[in-house]
Amino acid sequence: MHFADALAENVRKTSPICVGLDPDQEKLPEGVPRDPQGMHAFCRGILEAAAGIASCVKLQLASFELLRAEGMRMFWDLCTEAKERGFLVIADGKRGDIGATSEVYAEAYLGSSSPIDALTVNPYVGSDTITPFIEHCTQNNKGIFILVKTSNPTSSELQDLPTGDEVVYEVLGQLVERWGAAHLGPKTRLSCVGAVIGATYPEELRYLRTLMPHTPFLIPGYGAQGGTAEDVVHGFIPDGTGAIVSASRSIIYASHGNDWQTAARHATETMADDLKRALTLKTH
Amino acid sequence: MHFADALAENVRKTSPICVGLDPDQEKLPEGVPRDPQGMHAFCRGILEAAAGIASCVKLQLASFELLRAEGMRMFWDLCTEAKERGFLVIADGKRGDIGATSEVYAEAYLGSSSPIDALTVNPYVGSDTITPFIEHCTQNNKGIFILVKTSNPTSSELQDLPTGDEVVYEVLGQLVERWGAAHLGPKTRLSCVGAVIGATYPEELRYLRTLMPHTPFLIPGYGAQGGTAEDVVHGFIPDGTGAIVSASRSIIYASHGNDWQTAARHATETMADDLKRALTLKTH
Repeated sequence: MHFADALAENVRKTSPICVGLDPDQEKLPEGVPRDPQGMHAFCRGILEAAAGIASCVKLQLASFELLRAEGMRMFWDLCTEAKERGFLVIADGKRGDIGATSEVYAEAYLGSSSPIDALTVNPYVGSDTITPFIEHCTQNNKGIFILVKTSNPTSSELQDLPTGDEVVYEVLGQLVERWGAAHLGPKTRLSCVGAVIGATYPEELRYLRTLMPHTPFLIPGYGAQGGTAEDVVHGFIPDGTGAIVSASRSIIYASHGNDWQTAARHATETMADDLKRALTLKTH
Repeated sequence: MHFADALAENVRKTSPICVGLDPDQEKLPEGVPRDPQGMHAFCRGILEAAAGIASCVKLQLASFELLRAEGMRMFWDLCTEAKERGFLVIADGKRGDIGATSEVYAEAYLGSSSPIDALTVNPYVGSDTITPFIEHCTQNNKGIFILVKTSNPTSSELQDLPTGDEVVYEVLGQLVERWGAAHLGPKTRLSCVGAVIGATYPEELRYLRTLMPHTPFLIPGYGAQGGTAEDVVHGFIPDGTGAIVSASRSIIYASHGNDWQTAARHATETMADDLKRALTLKTH
């Protein structure tokens, strides 16, 4: 199934929540050994806790690259385990390079046998970066989320530079919409080419939604970074789809005690309720 | 030793050549098994061939990520092997993320026990991305090369957007120079914060050199991508240092026959001679 259609289907069955897995051995909760095995068990526990509530899981590649070969084995195992639990799996690598290298990244993460459904991509290099990813998306029913307006405090330095009557991220947003327009899902009419827009910039989110009607949004920055349910509703399309909202620390570290798994499940449920309420208010 | 000083010392002993290792199992030359072991042996053979001629080696992370855990083991082994042969080792990952994640990438690649000397970094997210890397550079005598103007055909799409009287990459170039200005090597007065500027844009290279007097340049795009010795000399400072020139395919695939190692050595020597001649012409 086309990535955007699969995403909408998964969101309808569960919620627009994407659980961010960026585990840190030093921050593992009580009762979990602070070693690679403990980290793997912790991630599995979070997958179990969020299954059936969240539609997607986003694995932060940096956390696994830190553990070198052992970490990458864990990363791929967790991708498979997440897929088996019914999640759509997003690899958060923010990869981007010239065409020949982008081709290799696309094959590495979005190849036909990969358990990963989508990869985050950095657009600074230009459309040479994007084209090989889109080819893999259309061939293998995968997706990408291109950084447009990131959630961090200094995202304005380059992204908000004025150019003509617009700013850089607005120009980029329109490019992303154009890159994706030829690759819409037959059911949703949404593209396999998505965008990353931070929850911490709700006005920008609202405006980009109007500029990018066919682009699924991945919205990070919810919870620990400050984004609220009221902030992120602007990223959805009127039927309540078209966006997923990512939260990491507020779910995976919901408790540092040995009730961490129950706490993670409750935090995911609470977030799902909050999003549902805010979306209902918006559409009524 | 400060990264920029170590770089200058290595360049003086050898040449400003950075050999790009982006091996592809399917393209391995005659006599080399097309499997991970063959790929590792091939990379070792290239390191042996270029030792004493090239100052740096740049490993393309994508090529190794494609082989998952096994590839990452090979990547780290090759970094150590390259270091033992006297190269400065650059990891070409173009990483970049929000602050907390950038911190993890910095620790992963530029930690105190890492054999890697420098990492390429993508600046689209803003200075939140850069700060953790600079901290690791100053603590551990490491370097970064930030993408400013990339060598590919569509790099203009975002990088050349006009903003005020300048374009995006010029604004970024000045930011990079400023980020690095407080971190100069005591000998060279060059920074541990470098920039990636493509050989395929010689006029931009010349102008950015004037805007960024303390910034070491990593110049890709030589050879197979079209950049020549005459193009890249504009990236050097008057004493013939301040830049390294990266070539990959024109060296590692100099021959597809079983003379590939000799051919790689000759290609590296020829490139060193060409650069030396062009630099001599420039400074006389």
